[in-house]
Amino acid sequence: MFDPVEKLKEHLRFPSVSTDSKFKEGMDGSRRFLEGLFTDMGLGVEVVNTPMHPIVLARREGNSEWPHVLVYGHYDVQPADPLGEWQSDPFDPVVKDGRLFARGAADNKGPQMAHIAAVAQVLEENPELPLRITFLIEGEEEIGSPSLKPFLESRKESFADVDLVLLSDTLSPTEEQIVVTVGLRGIAVLDVEVKGPNVDLHSGLHGGAVYNPVQALCEICASLHDGNNRVTVDGFYEGVTDVEDWEREELAKLEADEKAYKEMLGVDELHPLEGYTPFEATRYLPTLEFNGIGGGYQGEGSKTIVPAKAMTKISCRLVGNQDPKAIGDRVRQAILDRAPSGVSISVKMGHEGAPYLVTPPGRPNSPADMPDRLVHAFETTTKAIGETFGRPPLFLREGGSIPIIADFKSILGLDSVMIGLFLPEDKLHAPNESMNLDVLNRGIEASKRILLSIAQHG
Amino acid sequence: MFDPVEKLKEHLRFPSVSTDSKFKEGMDGSRRFLEGLFTDMGLGVEVVNTPMHPIVLARREGNSEWPHVLVYGHYDVQPADPLGEWQSDPFDPVVKDGRLFARGAADNKGPQMAHIAAVAQVLEENPELPLRITFLIEGEEEIGSPSLKPFLESRKESFADVDLVLLSDTLSPTEEQIVVTVGLRGIAVLDVEVKGPNVDLHSGLHGGAVYNPVQALCEICASLHDGNNRVTVDGFYEGVTDVEDWEREELAKLEADEKAYKEMLGVDELHPLEGYTPFEATRYLPTLEFNGIGGGYQGEGSKTIVPAKAMTKISCRLVGNQDPKAIGDRVRQAILDRAPSGVSISVKMGHEGAPYLVTPPGRPNSPADMPDRLVHAFETTTKAIGETFGRPPLFLREGGSIPIIADFKSILGLDSVMIGLFLPEDKLHAPNESMNLDVLNRGIEASKRILLSIAQHG
Repeated sequence: MFDPVEKLKEHLRFPSVSTDSKFKEGMDGSRRFLEGLFTDMGLGVEVVNTPMHPIVLARREGNSEWPHVLVYGHYDVQPADPLGEWQSDPFDPVVKDGRLFARGAADNKGPQMAHIAAVAQVLEENPELPLRITFLIEGEEEIGSPSLKPFLESRKESFADVDLVLLSDTLSPTEEQIVVTVGLRGIAVLDVEVKGPNVDLHSGLHGGAVYNPVQALCEICASLHDGNNRVTVDGFYEGVTDVEDWEREELAKLEADEKAYKEMLGVDELHPLEGYTPFEATRYLPTLEFNGIGGGYQGEGSKTIVPAKAMTKISCRLVGNQDPKAIGDRVRQAILDRAPSGVSISVKMGHEGAPYLVTPPGRPNSPADMPDRLVHAFETTTKAIGETFGRPPLFLREGGSIPIIADFKSILGLDSVMIGLFLPEDKLHAPNESMNLDVLNRGIEASKRILLSIAQHG
Repeated sequence: MFDPVEKLKEHLRFPSVSTDSKFKEGMDGSRRFLEGLFTDMGLGVEVVNTPMHPIVLARREGNSEWPHVLVYGHYDVQPADPLGEWQSDPFDPVVKDGRLFARGAADNKGPQMAHIAAVAQVLEENPELPLRITFLIEGEEEIGSPSLKPFLESRKESFADVDLVLLSDTLSPTEEQIVVTVGLRGIAVLDVEVKGPNVDLHSGLHGGAVYNPVQALCEICASLHDGNNRVTVDGFYEGVTDVEDWEREELAKLEADEKAYKEMLGVDELHPLEGYTPFEATRYLPTLEFNGIGGGYQGEGSKTIVPAKAMTKISCRLVGNQDPKAIGDRVRQAILDRAPSGVSISVKMGHEGAPYLVTPPGRPNSPADMPDRLVHAFETTTKAIGETFGRPPLFLREGGSIPIIADFKSILGLDSVMIGLFLPEDKLHAPNESMNLDVLNRGIEASKRILLSIAQHG
């Protein structure tokens, strides 16, 4: 009998940190664990080498007439530091009060296990079921999935008959209220550097003669939003799609409380674009955020210089049909256009990812041409979650970015059914990450019902 | 025989960075070096403890009827970072092409050595000369001399019979053209911190809901200058005095070349306040400069956060009769007034110092009541510099700040004769600081002639 919690604990013992080459052994161990697991389940396993970390593909052919589900997940995890803040070893999973504590428990080894265990148990109960499924578990999600897009492009034919992607790597607000995520923001990242004099200057001897690069950078950055927090770059909102009434109604059901949100963040006032609530702004609107700024002397005391240079890191979150390359270029151009003479500016484009948006069936704007199997998948997901969690899911957009979801759509033409199985208190990317085992068990049950229903839908 | 270059190298080996408590040992070493040096010269040494770094006082009583000269200097230096940009160890002095490279070589250990060596050599040549001199070498100049003013106030009687202050801690434009500085800018320093959310936030989940503190800081900073580089703080220019015709004529003799200045600084265009040349702006106008800025992620790659906080360091240079406390308060208030809701701002006032201005003898606006010994000191300085450097000095204001010069005037009633012995290419406060050894040697010769002439003037 497949024991999901024991298997998950086994998986969590491998410190599979993808960003740090010191953890190569942990990455190898995690990959081999998955190979063994899928082999034991009777699936055909292929390990695809990439320039960095291999992709694990596990396939069950089943009946070629049946729907083909692609389950996505990632076996890499965030670094565990600061280690001192963990109450137990991040790579020695411990169960406490119904939660399993370990790095990767919620992101993504736990939620991914819901679908692995569902398939294992379905096949244990009915070994002859012609279930048609492919697991694609990558090792580079936490570093931006650089190898996955080229892999999908080079192996399109392997996925030609896939009907939909199923995954759990998104957030639900509470353990009673599961969210099916129907939109993700895209991203475009820019590094800006302003250069003034060739060295830091004495601000007494030269102050007043030259353009201070920190001043120039601040003037440029300050010009990028107006007083209502609207981004002032021409064309920045191009491709933003309307928010549908049903989306606002669905969001209202969250009963999110601005007062509690402010208290959680520790701010006196929220600052969404005029006309939007903060909960709308983070889901429906693009943003231009300064992730960091630096220049000159930042140490103790004072150093009275005109700095030689200053820098800022910007990331834009994008929505709807926005093209990250086009928007990134517009921001870059606006920054260059606004540079005063007396300083020189360079803007380097970083990584980018497209936004993703799917309208589930039964809404006024649902696409008429949505494939029947995908329509059925959304419907059966709604039903299964309602049965196992006691409440039907909410269909909401989320503010984060999983660029690979847009790639599945643009390269393979596939939409994704994203079932949120981690919660705010699971502390993703932070010390003492954990997975709620009750959510995991209900998730397994829901996934079994979904997979069986999809399979039998024919 | 006193060897000034060897002594200077010895002094430069102590990393006497006053702003950073990690360098306590370097401060102690530098102080002890001076104690030994002055003791060897036969002077009476007193180390005056202060709340931070001790003051070294070295006194030769000489003949109480003779003029009493107070030589001022400082043994503390600026931090050496960024260390990677030095071509040799900043605290292991190296001579190359007639220059001595080390942190503090020009500011102020080299120029201060000109007067120490002058006294040492004068006394070696004539041990019985009743030269009446006091060296006051402090350890807090680079952090605004907080202890020196209270010291002067508490020890007025020790300096009651001093006639004038002699120092070299100012700039000359070339090694042929020495400047006697007759004005210094004052200074007021402010530390600004902007706080937003209580932790760095995921810019996907929360971006668009909160005021980004980097954005708020940039907006405040950008508001502090208009398009002509005029500071937009109410009353910022209060107390600025007129520039005399003789000052403009003297400045014109500099034959300063904007093209060469731009090339030296590595900028395409200069940026003085409209209506002033850059050489006037740095001498006659107050400024508000950003010395540093920081917040969020500044490392390699990207980290997509809304930072919890951001900071900037500001210094204002002030001129004429401007009151640093009053102007600093106005800037502080303007920053607080311009803070948007959604973030919280704190502005901490740092050190401050008044501007200084003296009119040398023989000008239309020279004070009629200037003491005879000071008139003679200016005249003999003009002569000695003409003889040793081949050209008489120019009498100019300088953009830097030595707040203690204004304190000597306001507390002790003393004016200062400031002989510029460092040059633009000496890179004060920057990597690869150096001292021109030919200028040092001529400076020693000039100082000997000045001290002997003052002494013999009776």
